[in-house]
Amino acid sequence: MNKRLNLLVFSGEYDKALAALILANGAREMGMEVTIFFAFWGLLVIRKEGYEEDIHETLYQKAFKSMTPKCAEDLNISNMNFLGAGQKMLKHMMKESGKPMLKDFLDGARHKNVKFYACKLSQEVMGFSEEELIDEAITMEVYDYLKDALESDIQLFI
Amino acid sequence: MNKRLNLLVFSGEYDKALAALILANGAREMGMEVTIFFAFWGLLVIRKEGYEEDIHETLYQKAFKSMTPKCAEDLNISNMNFLGAGQKMLKHMMKESGKPMLKDFLDGARHKNVKFYACKLSQEVMGFSEEELIDEAITMEVYDYLKDALESDIQLFI
Amino acid sequence: MNKRLNLLVFSGEYDKALAALILANGAREMGMEVTIFFAFWGLLVIRKEGYEEDIHETLYQKAFKSMTPKCAEDLNISNMNFLGAGQKMLKHMMKESGKPMLKDFLDGARHKNVKFYACKLSQEVMGFSEEELIDEAITMEVYDYLKDALESDIQLFI
Repeated sequence: MNKRLNLLVFSGEYDKALAALILANGAREMGMEVTIFFAFWGLLVIRKEGYEEDIHETLYQKAFKSMTPKCAEDLNISNMNFLGAGQKMLKHMMKESGKPMLKDFLDGARHKNVKFYACKLSQEVMGFSEEELIDEAITMEVYDYLKDALESDIQLFI
Repeated sequence: MNKRLNLLVFSGEYDKALAALILANGAREMGMEVTIFFAFWGLLVIRKEGYEEDIHETLYQKAFKSMTPKCAEDLNISNMNFLGAGQKMLKHMMKESGKPMLKDFLDGARHKNVKFYACKLSQEVMGFSEEELIDEAITMEVYDYLKDALESDIQLFI
Repeated sequence: MNKRLNLLVFSGEYDKALAALILANGAREMGMEVTIFFAFWGLLVIRKEGYEEDIHETLYQKAFKSMTPKCAEDLNISNMNFLGAGQKMLKHMMKESGKPMLKDFLDGARHKNVKFYACKLSQEVMGFSEEELIDEAITMEVYDYLKDALESDIQLFI
């Protein structure tokens, strides 16, 4: 199928990232091309697990990074999070109904050659170097996002 | 008009559901075809009022259902909810300016033959059978959503 | 470039408004036509600074207006707001990395002839007259939004 899906993932929440990655996997399985542009909180979805903190970051960037989830599975949910209890409950319900976790959908998207773009401006504000994000992520500007979106058949802001 | 609007309603909040249903009603009045795919929290928007709880659900699903709004009019708002006070205030302001309630826009969409799709994966995780949702809702998979979205002129993620 | 971007800004948060206006500025720089339809909380993004409150508003509308941010720079952020500390932290990080503020991107969009539409229904509910919004904002209905969206190449709900 000669069709394209373009997602702008602005949110850094477990449930919204799950929605984005389920769409991305489904579209690839149907033969569509898929690009995801991660911006702002969305960068937290593609943070590389276990990465050592950078020494070039400012005090605020250091504080920001230490206060935010370290990897996809640690993200909070957008509703009823209750300091993390809601996220654990959602994960339990997903396991009980035999569903993969966010990490699995993320790995699936990586193996299925979904294109991962990371917003340059957001990286600079938050102090995330390309090395701190998953290997597939390529730093891109808003113009690159717009060009890709213009060539796509579906564009969503998540 | 031979045009189509496709909405993915992920949010289960009063104000966002209102936005989605105002768009859906407006588009139908203009002669457009409209499909709404309800996923995750969005399922709460189309919960059938007064439905008795299912005995096949797990403990977590039972807890989840008892903690979440029972019908569209009970949904919280996404900002300034203040344990429900904000939602009541919004409803007051809507009434004072002569606007219909969410329930009315939902009924309008049902009467105007908007297509209601309910996400299969979300139903399985949350334990919602098709009988617990409004009669118009048909269980669909992410592939069905993508096919419909590909044939639409406007696609929004709400 | 004969292409169009259409944004429906429903959110009234600093970070989401920033995303919308960065997209709008970027698209104009690439020669695209840009329309932004501000609805619900989105009206708070284009509130005119220092405007005196209207005497025709109801008690609820008066309360609502006094409880909500008075201009774009006062908006909260959608995550980790911590009663405003998170927003201040974000602004610090933006300044440290040499980025313009939301106000600058808003002014940029105004100078670059982005079309500003304000949702009529939302204005009536919240009690915002056209005079209380930035001069560029024109009151429009949901039908106008849909017509513009149908003629656009990218449509996003933010």
